[in-house]
Amino acid sequence: MDERTALRLLAADLPGAGDDAAIVDGLVVTTDMLHEATDFPDGTTRYTAGWRAVGASLSDVAAMGATATCAVAVYAAAELDETELRDFVQGARDVCEAVSAEYVGGDLDTHREFTAVSTAIGRTDDPVLRSGARPGDALCVTGELGRSAAAVRLFDADETERANDLFRFTPRVAAGVRLAESATAMMDSSDGLARSVHQLAEASECGFELDWDALPVHDAVEDVATDAADRRDLSAYFGEDFELVFTIPEAELDAVRDDVDVPITVVGRTTAEEAIVADGNPLPDRGYTHGGD
Amino acid sequence: MDERTALRLLAADLPGAGDDAAIVDGLVVTTDMLHEATDFPDGTTRYTAGWRAVGASLSDVAAMGATATCAVAVYAAAELDETELRDFVQGARDVCEAVSAEYVGGDLDTHREFTAVSTAIGRTDDPVLRSGARPGDALCVTGELGRSAAAVRLFDADETERANDLFRFTPRVAAGVRLAESATAMMDSSDGLARSVHQLAEASECGFELDWDALPVHDAVEDVATDAADRRDLSAYFGEDFELVFTIPEAELDAVRDDVDVPITVVGRTTAEEAIVADGNPLPDRGYTHGGD
Repeated sequence: MDERTALRLLAADLPGAGDDAAIVDGLVVTTDMLHEATDFPDGTTRYTAGWRAVGASLSDVAAMGATATCAVAVYAAAELDETELRDFVQGARDVCEAVSAEYVGGDLDTHREFTAVSTAIGRTDDPVLRSGARPGDALCVTGELGRSAAAVRLFDADETERANDLFRFTPRVAAGVRLAESATAMMDSSDGLARSVHQLAEASECGFELDWDALPVHDAVEDVATDAADRRDLSAYFGEDFELVFTIPEAELDAVRDDVDVPITVVGRTTAEEAIVADGNPLPDRGYTHGGD
Repeated sequence: MDERTALRLLAADLPGAGDDAAIVDGLVVTTDMLHEATDFPDGTTRYTAGWRAVGASLSDVAAMGATATCAVAVYAAAELDETELRDFVQGARDVCEAVSAEYVGGDLDTHREFTAVSTAIGRTDDPVLRSGARPGDALCVTGELGRSAAAVRLFDADETERANDLFRFTPRVAAGVRLAESATAMMDSSDGLARSVHQLAEASECGFELDWDALPVHDAVEDVATDAADRRDLSAYFGEDFELVFTIPEAELDAVRDDVDVPITVVGRTTAEEAIVADGNPLPDRGYTHGGD
């Protein structure tokens, strides 16, 4: 059984789960395990690892349109080195501070492979689910795509400083809270734009038309991509960008743009027909392959 | 740096952490990593593992005197077998149900060693800390001690059914909520009674006098212990029992006993002098050694 099948199985069993975060009693809760072999390329600092592990969970909180309350993390490594541990915690604290959440500690363990497990908690009385997209809604993303994919290439090329910078993304909590007033469906792009759009379509029982040229591609992708096909792989399929992917009535876009401090790009529109096309061709349901390209 | 040193270092940096669970904004949050090599002896079923992993976190919620709201868990194994995964989730759900919490899912990962990470969330406006014990208070424990230590022996002896039963403890959430009204200091006994008492003494700046004969020792310990010293090791030092260890004014004991459905045993008293003695001898600050005896 692969992870995706297993996750579907669990979602069917657990009505509280299945969106970006579980919802219970005014809280949203999400937990993620990241480990060295698949999530932290050689050259990733412990500071970046702490930032990124906790940031991934805060991104799920953002995707629900919730405010971020706090996060905890488990740090597991073969040896507990004081400097490495302090750096990890500082990264975790700093990403929490960036979204006005509190980092409140966690657990430690010795483990052959460096592993980080983060859990974030947010609050909302009116979460934005994946299931509310309506035909005619604009399909949008925050920020720029391909940032993490480019970073992985840069780690491979030993450009670790720039790669670490790119790996430390700001979870879109503030934008998510504002979008909760207007977006009809929302999730984060951790599985890549293409797979995210497929997931929104499945949950909302709708289709989408994407415009390839509209995608906001990160500058770093332009620097590392070998050709146009590679550029598309990095920006639309690789994922791990932790931007928000959402649908919204066109009429609300200007007001939202005035209120948030992150660019919002319309990349397509919601259709009644349950097909997902990009420039008229079917969009493959192909997503994040851990650490690969 | 060993785990204990590292945990102290973190607690000093993070004011929200350092007790059984972190406290933030009316919530208590706690996270724990358990893995096969140290926490799940051969013969532990996935059902028991799910119960126990989530139960360990719920026990930390109980130790704060909070109600348990929900829990999430990460399940990581070399292969995602459907039956094993379903069993794990069922165990997680059942232990949540036992304390009126909701199990709301989590994350999956492939990992060489079977690893479970649980996070539990509770609510309280008035948490019970480790720091409030006052001279004269009775030192008490819920339930019986040595249950997990005996289980590990039984796993070694291939008595896996009984061992699994013993490994599935009921987190003392209901007792904890009632004790929040009366207890002056509280924690859970996951590190063993002896170490727990040392931790209460350090946080409360007090001492304790224990009576060895007063310890409520689980029947299973009597079955597996080789002699009196072994019996003491299993019941007072091994830990992982997830009972509550607390201090309380003697005058309040009867009322508490009337209200809770778990036995409460007085095992000693709080002293002003900062020394910890059992039957007049210093009590070693010796605690849980993962998987050992």
